[in-house]
Formats: sequence, C-alpha cells, structure tokens
Amino acid sequence: MIPTETFSDCVTADAPLCEEKMRVCQNDCIAENVSVRGDGTLLFAGQDVTELAARYGTPLYLMDEHQIRWRCRQYRTTLEDAFGTRCRVLYASKAASFKRLYEIMAEEGLGVDVVSAGEIETAKRAGFPLGQALFHSNNKTDFDISFAMDAGVGCFVADNLEELYAVEREAASRGAVQDVLLRLTPGIDPHTYAAVSTGKVDSKFGFAIETGQAQEAVRETLSLPHLRLRGFHCHVGSQVFSADVYIEAADVMLGFIAGVQAKYGFIAEVLDLGGGFGVRYTADQPVLDIPARIAELAAHLKKEARTLGISLPEIWLEPGRSIVADAGMTLYTVGTVKRIPGYKTYVSVDGGMTDNIRTALYGAKYTILPAGDLFAPRDEICSVVGRCCESGDILQENVPLPSSTGRGDVLACLTTGAYHYSMASNYNRIPRPPVVMLRNGDSYIAVRRETVDDLVRLDN
Amino acid sequence: MIPTETFSDCVTADAPLCEEKMRVCQNDCIAENVSVRGDGTLLFAGQDVTELAARYGTPLYLMDEHQIRWRCRQYRTTLEDAFGTRCRVLYASKAASFKRLYEIMAEEGLGVDVVSAGEIETAKRAGFPLGQALFHSNNKTDFDISFAMDAGVGCFVADNLEELYAVEREAASRGAVQDVLLRLTPGIDPHTYAAVSTGKVDSKFGFAIETGQAQEAVRETLSLPHLRLRGFHCHVGSQVFSADVYIEAADVMLGFIAGVQAKYGFIAEVLDLGGGFGVRYTADQPVLDIPARIAELAAHLKKEARTLGISLPEIWLEPGRSIVADAGMTLYTVGTVKRIPGYKTYVSVDGGMTDNIRTALYGAKYTILPAGDLFAPRDEICSVVGRCCESGDILQENVPLPSSTGRGDVLACLTTGAYHYSMASNYNRIPRPPVVMLRNGDSYIAVRRETVDDLVRLDN
Repeated sequence: MIPTETFSDCVTADAPLCEEKMRVCQNDCIAENVSVRGDGTLLFAGQDVTELAARYGTPLYLMDEHQIRWRCRQYRTTLEDAFGTRCRVLYASKAASFKRLYEIMAEEGLGVDVVSAGEIETAKRAGFPLGQALFHSNNKTDFDISFAMDAGVGCFVADNLEELYAVEREAASRGAVQDVLLRLTPGIDPHTYAAVSTGKVDSKFGFAIETGQAQEAVRETLSLPHLRLRGFHCHVGSQVFSADVYIEAADVMLGFIAGVQAKYGFIAEVLDLGGGFGVRYTADQPVLDIPARIAELAAHLKKEARTLGISLPEIWLEPGRSIVADAGMTLYTVGTVKRIPGYKTYVSVDGGMTDNIRTALYGAKYTILPAGDLFAPRDEICSVVGRCCESGDILQENVPLPSSTGRGDVLACLTTGAYHYSMASNYNRIPRPPVVMLRNGDSYIAVRRETVDDLVRLDN
Repeated sequence: MIPTETFSDCVTADAPLCEEKMRVCQNDCIAENVSVRGDGTLLFAGQDVTELAARYGTPLYLMDEHQIRWRCRQYRTTLEDAFGTRCRVLYASKAASFKRLYEIMAEEGLGVDVVSAGEIETAKRAGFPLGQALFHSNNKTDFDISFAMDAGVGCFVADNLEELYAVEREAASRGAVQDVLLRLTPGIDPHTYAAVSTGKVDSKFGFAIETGQAQEAVRETLSLPHLRLRGFHCHVGSQVFSADVYIEAADVMLGFIAGVQAKYGFIAEVLDLGGGFGVRYTADQPVLDIPARIAELAAHLKKEARTLGISLPEIWLEPGRSIVADAGMTLYTVGTVKRIPGYKTYVSVDGGMTDNIRTALYGAKYTILPAGDLFAPRDEICSVVGRCCESGDILQENVPLPSSTGRGDVLACLTTGAYHYSMASNYNRIPRPPVVMLRNGDSYIAVRRETVDDLVRLDN
C-alpha cells in the first residue's frame, strides 16, 4: 500500500537527509495506508490529503475503502482457514454506521451487528440482507423489537430476562419463531479501561455465568415456544491486545456450553466471541497480528472442545474498531497558534470534541501530523485544541509540530475511523463533517457535510 | 412555584406519614419548579411528568419556560438595581441553543452570546436582534467572521491576534468598523474541575494579562482602523460557587483597565465578567444566592473603581447554565432491571450518553427520581444505565429506587436544561429526544423528536 515514490525517494536522495526522512516515514506511517511523498506531503490511501482538504473543506473525515475491504477479507479468510464454513464475521456497526458501510459489508460477505432501530434502518436502506444481522443492546425497547422483526433481522442477542419475554410476546403475536443468542458475562477482566470493559460479571450487559443466572436463562429460553436458542455470545471489552483474554473467555464459554449440554441436552450451534481486538493509534503501540491471534484462538477452541467432548459450535466474531479505525483519518485547518510564554503553545483547529469526543471522554491518544510537510523539523511541543467554547476541548496534548505552523495549515489526525463520526455531536451548533471515501486514487462523498439549515430543521 | 396541594397534603395528612412525606419533598425538590403531588407523583412546573412521558414518549427533555424567564429577570433586575442602565445580561447560548430560546431571550430583553455560525443562524431565524449578540470562540474561521458580519452581530470577543487581523481584514473589505472586546485571562483558579476552568493563564482562551500579551493586544487593536475596542471580557470557569473568584477576577480586570488607561489613554466602556455561577444538581449542593453574589460583586466593583480613580465601565454578565439548567428535566422509561447477586442492580433506561454525555465526560452528579411514586420506599441502590452498547454509558451510580421498579416505569433526571440537548449525539444511531416546553400548565414542542429518516438524510 505504500506508494513506491515514498521509500524510493528516501532511499535515493543524499544519505544523511535520507536517514532522517526514513525515520519520519517509519514513525509517522503507523498504518499501511499512511505514507509520505518525496516532498513531505502526507498521503492517505496514496492520495495527497492537503488536496482533499482543499477540495472538500475541513474538518473532514476520510475513509479508505480499500483498507476496510482488506480488513474484512483478512478476518474472513483467517476464520475460514480455521473453521471452513462453520464461522461468521459480523461487523459491529456502532463503530461507524452509515449506508455506504453496510453496502461494503454486504459485498464482502460479512454479517453486521446492529444496536438500534436507527442502525437497522440504515442497513435496510443500504440494501443489506438483514437476515445476516445480529441485534445487540442491553435495552431493546418494545418498539425496537417490533421494528427489528418487521425488518427481518436474523438473530437477536438477548441481554436479560425482560427482553426474552418481550421478544417471546412479539414473536408469538406474529406466529413466528425468533432466533436468539444469549449474551453472557464470562467474568473476565480484559485489562483495558473501565468504560470499554464489558465482559466482567459486574456489567450492565448480559447474564452472569458466575451467579448461575446464565444457566437459568438457558432453561427459561428453552421453555419459551417462540424463541429458538442458537447459542451464546460474550464480549470481553475493547482495545484488547492480549490473546490470553480471548482464550480465557473461550474456556469459560465452552465450559458453560458443555455444562448446559449435560444438564439440558441443549447443543449450542453458535459461539460468538464478540470483538475488541486492539488498534494502533500511536507509534508506541503494537501492531496486533490479528490473523495470528485468531489462529491461536482457533487451535485452542478445537483442542478444548475435544477435551470437553463436545462438538465445536460455529464461531462468530464481531470486529468493529479493528475493521474501520485505521481506515479513517480526520483533517483539520489551523485557525490560530497561541504561545503563552512560560506555559504552553495552543494550536486551535476548526474541529474538536464535536467530531472527536474520545480524547475528552477516555483520554484517548492519537497521532497528529502536519500534513503539508512531514519533513519540516517538529521543533515545538503543542496542545492541539478544538474550537468549542470549553476548556476540555483538547484534541491532543504534547504534539510535536513545526514552529512555523500557522493559520490555514492542515493537520491530520490518524486512526479516526471508529467511534468518531458515530459519536459526533452538534455541540456549539457546529455541523458534523462529511465522510469522504477514498477508492482507487479517487474519492466520493459517503456522508454529506451538515449545513446550518440542517441544524435548525428540528426547531419549531 | 410549588403547588399548594403538595405541602398542604403533607401537612394535613396523619402525622408520622406526613413527616416522612415532608422529608421526601424537601430532599427531592431541589429546585422551585420541582414538587410532589399528594399521591406521590412528581410534578415539574406543576405538571404531572408521567402524563407528559405518556403524551410525548421518552426519552424526553422538558423545559420550564417560566423558570427560564424568572432566571432572566432575576439577573436583569439585580444587575439594573446595581448599575442602572450601565449593564447587560447576555445568555450564553451554548448551554442550550434552539430557536425558541432566542425568542424568549429577545422577549426578556437579554443579549446572547453565540459561538458559531450555527448559533448565529439559529438566533437569526428566531428573529433575535443580532446587534445584541456577542460572538465568542477561540477559533473563529474566516467563514464564521464573514457570516457574523453578514448577520450583523453586534460585537466580537476577540480571542487572539490572528483573529484580530482576520476581523480587521473582513471589516476593511466591507468599509465597516467592527466593535470588539478582548478576551483576557486574569490568571484566576476558580477551584472547579479542569475541563471547565477557563480563566487561568494556561488556557486555550484569550490573552494572558500576566505575560504582557493582553496589553500588547490592546496596543495592536487600537492601531487597527476597522476595529473599535469597547472593552474587555474574562470568564473564570463554570460551576463556581465562591464569590471570591469573581471579586478576584474583577480586581485583576479593573487593575488592567486602569493600567491601559494610564498607558494608552484608552477608556474601557465595557467590562464583561462572563458567566459560571454554580447550579444545584443534588440536594447536598448549596443553592447559590445569585442576587446576593451579584450585589456583593457590584459593591466591590464600585469601590475598587473609586480606589483606582477610574470610571466604572458598563458591567456585562454571560450566564448560561444558571439560566437554563434547573429549567430542564429529562424523562426516561425503564427497560430492564438486572440484579447481579453479590454485585449490583442495573436499571437500564431508553436514553443515556446520547442525551446526557456529562456523566461520562465529567463524572457529573444528578438527582434521579422514580416519577410515578416518590413516596414508595427507595429500598434498593441502583446503577441507572443508558441503552448504548458501551460500558461507560452510566447515567448515575448509587441511585436509591424502589425495589419494585420495572419495565415501563418513568424515571426523571433533574437539572438537565444545560449542556444536554446541546451536546446530544446520534451514537448508536439513536435519534435525539424532543424538547417540550412547559408553560402555564400547558406544553408545546420547541424541538421535535428526530426520526430514523432524519438519521439517514446525510447518507449518500
């Protein structure tokens, strides 16, 4: 994916500069689709981002269609290599949800995980085959349940008893039988931050195995005539880099499956291990070898099933972030550079917590680059801040930038494909940026920019 | 504001129950417009909130028009009592911005503080006289500046040098002269939380007095022919309960004004002390006596101006949160109650971090009440959680609720008028709730509910 001009330029120019350029390339290009042109311009999916900023305006979300497809295929291939047809990859669309993404998922043969009527409707309008959709959420309303059945959503992931009864009621009223998985909490601590740690017993999600509530839920589900229990789901958390966590969860889940088989004679067809594979946001984070991790997990699952004397269910995975995060980049234009002697330098850009709430919410780390000239010495440590009237609107602290940075310069924030557009707000009545997709050296608008007209459309 | 039936019922019923009911009333009714009917139903602005939930659906933002107007009048009266016509109250509309609020502000004779083209456009469509608007922001783009001048925004609060030059250029191109205030950082620590602490030297906002940059900005502004410097602005922070902070800031600002008068012969017409007065979110927080604080501040300003031998400028204030916060309430419907033995009880509602990001973002505290029966014993400590697929989507921990709480019950979250609707998102593709205004025992829709159609309108 790295255009040949980049490295060839680094390699062929005079030696001392070259080493320095090579260092810049290696440090900044934290994903395959990020590269540097010989003149120092940042390229994304091989395209000059400063040109894209000029063409579409800023702030601007870019998404690299090739990267998304490549990630989808990587998951599918790896899983199919291990399990043949007895597997499924479902894109967790809360990471980024708009019509074009569901089209791509349909074309790549992935299922999707949806969490609301809004996501279902978006998938539907994209022509996504909703039989391949899995409906998550810790609180499906009666409206949601009816909406999902109208839309033909293939399978519900039931989170709690009220929901089981509500789905049963709705299915009964239609004379239908609804496929369900049960969401279980295996009691694993994924060693990630609390806000995205979901697999622990003390969680708003799922039925706890430890307390016996999960087993009770199986018994209850099997007794409800309009539900067909297909298997079990768990999700240990997000931004997980350790393979052990998945293996630990797999053991707990397979043990549970063997237990309910022995107790109720119920044979699980599906084991959905959720998502959560970690993504590299900064150069000091590792690149997770997802195929290797999945291969390890697959080998372990097979062995463990043999040990337990059960047949291995279909294995489903639900990657979200790891499919779209590094397919995304946000471009901003600098408005002002404020140097406070003895304190800090603040570089204000034309976006902020409205298009990226993750820094304010989780203290998330990002790589921010001066898009116009990556080879200029970055001789000033800056706080890159947003335009919202709020002190907490800081995109990133301690960003090295050229001291020549000024009004009109373009900054790029990397790895913004997941939980950016989907979490965007209109705080300060700021319109949400468009999502421009990059494909084969060209670009197109997948989500248009909001206008001030859009902002007042709900006001009476 | 408290309907007579509430307290009279408490007082006239049998004695032991009465004391208990009275305690409930006193503990739950943290603002004047919150009360309890004799049967235990929660009233807001005297209206049964469970009826409002049934009529408009949930999640639902309610706003009490009378309370908003009363707060506006309280600020105006107090300030006019102290300063006659030489004062101005400007509503900081980032706290809550939609058309109806600008209409109310116009009717109440308040100015408004706007921070973006979106807020300006909203005010304009509401017929707000934009000559009474003050344009804030640490990063006004060239588009914003031109947009604001087209709209006739009365005064800009210039935050930095680039902006001064950009405003000068735009005004020159129009042959106009633009009124400006300079935003200064007085170097005060407001002892509030970092994300909303804005008056310190180390801030993305304004010109620092301590470093000499503020004085330099005065010199520069006075040299620009298309800018008319009217005075100075500062804002110490948000959720400030201490009067000392304002007095300290006033001293620094008046000292600065005296200094630039001596040095450049510039006489400031305006001193804008910003906003930030604290709001009561929970019963253990104080009720801030805003008129008393303003009276103290006024007396101090007059004395200090005499001491310095300068004439006191017009005093402007910019309340946002303290005008609308306790005029707001959010209603939710319970979906599921999950008891995990040995851990916690989770009560899931049909909203969450999409309509209230403040808990996740700042750890904000709220009062959450069982709207249907405030007199039922609250015998279970619950985590009230949202419906988003995210562990961090917790509305509030440790909420006492009746153990009988179940699917379909209405919960009310108090004091949600500020920074709720304005910060709402469509995360998980969840539509934003409507804003229903309460007035004279009646109600009307100020902002309509988003639909799934709205959610896909930007998608190509």
